[in-house]
Amino acid sequence: MNNFEFFNPVKIIFGKDQLAKLADQIPANKKVLMIYGGGSIFKNGVHALTKEALKNFEVLEFGGIEPNPRYETAMKAVELIKAEKIDFLLAVGGGSVIDATKFIAAAALFDAGDPWDILTKRKPVKAALPFGSVLTLPATGSEMNSGGVITREATHEKFAFSSPLTFPVFSFLLPDAASSLPKRQVANGVVDAFMHTMEQYMTYPANAPLQDRFAESILQTLVEEGPKAYANPADYEPMSNLMWSATMALNGLIGCGVPQDWAVHMMGHELTAKFGIDHARTLAIIAPSHYKYSFENKKEKLAQFGERVWGINVGTLDEKAHAAIDKMEAFFQSLGIDTKLSKYTEDYKGTAQNISKRFTDRGWAKLGERQSLKPSDVEKIVEMSY
Amino acid sequence: MNNFEFFNPVKIIFGKDQLAKLADQIPANKKVLMIYGGGSIFKNGVHALTKEALKNFEVLEFGGIEPNPRYETAMKAVELIKAEKIDFLLAVGGGSVIDATKFIAAAALFDAGDPWDILTKRKPVKAALPFGSVLTLPATGSEMNSGGVITREATHEKFAFSSPLTFPVFSFLLPDAASSLPKRQVANGVVDAFMHTMEQYMTYPANAPLQDRFAESILQTLVEEGPKAYANPADYEPMSNLMWSATMALNGLIGCGVPQDWAVHMMGHELTAKFGIDHARTLAIIAPSHYKYSFENKKEKLAQFGERVWGINVGTLDEKAHAAIDKMEAFFQSLGIDTKLSKYTEDYKGTAQNISKRFTDRGWAKLGERQSLKPSDVEKIVEMSY
Repeated sequence: MNNFEFFNPVKIIFGKDQLAKLADQIPANKKVLMIYGGGSIFKNGVHALTKEALKNFEVLEFGGIEPNPRYETAMKAVELIKAEKIDFLLAVGGGSVIDATKFIAAAALFDAGDPWDILTKRKPVKAALPFGSVLTLPATGSEMNSGGVITREATHEKFAFSSPLTFPVFSFLLPDAASSLPKRQVANGVVDAFMHTMEQYMTYPANAPLQDRFAESILQTLVEEGPKAYANPADYEPMSNLMWSATMALNGLIGCGVPQDWAVHMMGHELTAKFGIDHARTLAIIAPSHYKYSFENKKEKLAQFGERVWGINVGTLDEKAHAAIDKMEAFFQSLGIDTKLSKYTEDYKGTAQNISKRFTDRGWAKLGERQSLKPSDVEKIVEMSY
Repeated sequence: MNNFEFFNPVKIIFGKDQLAKLADQIPANKKVLMIYGGGSIFKNGVHALTKEALKNFEVLEFGGIEPNPRYETAMKAVELIKAEKIDFLLAVGGGSVIDATKFIAAAALFDAGDPWDILTKRKPVKAALPFGSVLTLPATGSEMNSGGVITREATHEKFAFSSPLTFPVFSFLLPDAASSLPKRQVANGVVDAFMHTMEQYMTYPANAPLQDRFAESILQTLVEEGPKAYANPADYEPMSNLMWSATMALNGLIGCGVPQDWAVHMMGHELTAKFGIDHARTLAIIAPSHYKYSFENKKEKLAQFGERVWGINVGTLDEKAHAAIDKMEAFFQSLGIDTKLSKYTEDYKGTAQNISKRFTDRGWAKLGERQSLKPSDVEKIVEMSY
């Protein structure tokens, strides 16, 4: 096991009828900005429950955060915060709303120039407004980590950031609120959580058996419970198991002391920025090709993944490893998710070269757990994903 | 899954050569009291490394915390803290030292009468000194939770307490420091972590597959890595896997949203208080009898434990469940741990009646995940453990 540090101070409040506890989590006399997306919280009742819970607070609202949250929109919230002297933020919705709120919290107190530099120049966040979240959609894990991903509409660029100052103070996890989700979003959530786990697990053996098994625990639970939640989002137990799995997939725990990859995300982000494809679907497009291309680096863990998650007990190590990739791809497809870029756009030619060039231009020359993938490798992987 | 809250703000710093980071974790100008046990930190070098790391702080020392830390000793530390105006504590050692430090941190600021009432009357802790820990022994998980167990020497009583204010601010986990441990302590650590996990897992199915698998992950890792660490405590990788497993066994995570038992601990504490038997060994004495006695309540989970942790794939559910108990008992014995009270003392007669009477006197009439065990059941379980 490698040396590591782990710190995650987010208070989780999980389950049914929990929002009555919301007012106790926010210091009295705070002026609160509720931040949300396109209005699903009006349909599922969470908007009304949140307002009711906060009836003794002064609450302003900012809606319209996009599925891939935009810098331009976030900066409008920052203007409102400054004008109204808001001092507590509450993200209500899914991972995009929480990601945006993290960036807004940091940008509102950023005094070292353009907040865009937090994303592109990795300028450090030195202060951030405190914020909590009310999660209505299992997927990104943003409710229990300090990272976010923001897109600049003007330039089709998508960047990740994180800071120890952008953990939510608390997160309510409400499986009930996910009962009215479109099946498409449930499928995306399953694949998103699955791939977050894989990026921290599908590398090389590092003598960290507990971390391996924790990752496999999440993957197995997603394989078992994900299809049930997809088939019937209103079934509380599978949705609650999916929601907790998605949170655990990206709260830092399974990545402790082990190598991590994240190349699939780096490539996937480019597909979302260019084509607007749902984040989870870009991961489903890239992952099978990446694992086939990087087979020699990953085959021990791929075979272990095959044995423990998919129950593949026959064949050579190489055969088990290949079968595991096929099982994973078939699992994504069973959730209605296409795993080839050409199913999403006819305009895919040249994508591999464009992504490779972008990586080169940004100086991101090495990807993967061994930092061995060059832009030319990325080009081949994306081409295999057409 | 049941509703739950989870909050664990402890910063973990794990691995080799990490103590150089210690000074960065403590606010400048704090006056520090180093609290430790019987002197093992002089032998393993951690005392010198800690002093070196804190060379820019004013540091006082308080040694002599016992393996089952005593109220009387803790109160001497409280006197020193008040006399010297100490404002930061650093526990250096194993779980007993950290448990004692938690109690000392709370008792030093307790202003509602005798601090003993925190233990016996469950008077709430309203303030506590900040403290960190340097862990040299994998076992109790105290390094990443807010609970402690304190014994009153004068009355042979042992009580647990916890408070949101008694989390360590940080904990260094040093597998290297455990390399010189006596094998007896390594064995105790394996069984302690195993039984912490079991108390949160060995109940009844609660539709919480991720929590089940996380618990099984810890148990499997202990079964694989524990004997290696026991055979050679200086082998870094097994010891590091044991240490991280022991921490994860009792940091609140695997208990989220599931029923919990803790009857084994309640009975075990009485054996330590009466006979001075090592905590872990009391758990190994009680657990097999408890699971046999409570078989009908637990057999579904016992069979699952048998299948997933011990690979028992043949037989009826009842047969698998019984075989799992036998495997567990044999595992404890393989680590040199006797699982019958009569192996520890000739003076065991009447113990069952005495413990049952103590429980009755204290009003603790119901134990176990269904709160169904009465003092008369406790009497039978302890008798089965002779």
